[in-house]
Amino acid sequence: MTFALDPRLAAESHPIGELALSRLLLMDDARFPWLVLVPRIAGARELIDLDEADQHALLGEIAAVGRAFEALLRPDKLNIAALGNVVPQLHVHLVARFHTDVAWPRPVWGTGERVPYADTERAERVAALRAALQPALTG
Amino acid sequence: MTFALDPRLAAESHPIGELALSRLLLMDDARFPWLVLVPRIAGARELIDLDEADQHALLGEIAAVGRAFEALLRPDKLNIAALGNVVPQLHVHLVARFHTDVAWPRPVWGTGERVPYADTERAERVAALRAALQPALTG
Repeated sequence: MTFALDPRLAAESHPIGELALSRLLLMDDARFPWLVLVPRIAGARELIDLDEADQHALLGEIAAVGRAFEALLRPDKLNIAALGNVVPQLHVHLVARFHTDVAWPRPVWGTGERVPYADTERAERVAALRAALQPALTG
Repeated sequence: MTFALDPRLAAESHPIGELALSRLLLMDDARFPWLVLVPRIAGARELIDLDEADQHALLGEIAAVGRAFEALLRPDKLNIAALGNVVPQLHVHLVARFHTDVAWPRPVWGTGERVPYADTERAERVAALRAALQPALTG
């Protein structure tokens, strides 16, 4: 079995690049700076199913993405979550939250309707994140 | 500065015990098997603020608690999240989710009203979790 991104995740996101373990996606929702890490491990569902080396690698990528968010956006809070109730493929959400965002202090999941990015706005965000995450990006 | 549990977390939970890094709490909500890990690090707010050794220790405790949930309850999905929008003190939620629970597939946060445990039901759950988590519990 080879890794393939769940089509529901693919449909609501744009690829940013590849980290050593994970594919990094930008959720296509201009309301929140919202990234998703998807370890390229076929069949993975739960964080605790990964072996310890992969768990540590994923945690390192979470930390790298979190630091990029902090450097670029200075959010009031990071939200980090592995839920998977709708899409069981293992994926980790990282959302930069602000006291002024439309969902604060509630979580972002299930809050109103997604607002897709305008093309230029999305391209700028992807470029800024790619720059902040060099040299961790491998593709 | 010494560690002190945030009073809002204390008010809605019952202590289960102490792991090497974290205090383990049972959220007082009989609708969901819901635990919270609170690293005993004064002033910690974000997962990525911890040094790498503490991050790895916390991840190990998340995995131990997740395995205890799986052994005891065989949930359909684990939800793991560090949010902190309301209580900024670093804490990690672990929720055993079932297709039949009242919030499925939505997240548990902000879903309806908390249902406190009956005393005997809570005591049984705490005892079962303490037994499943030996010898990781240090207190």
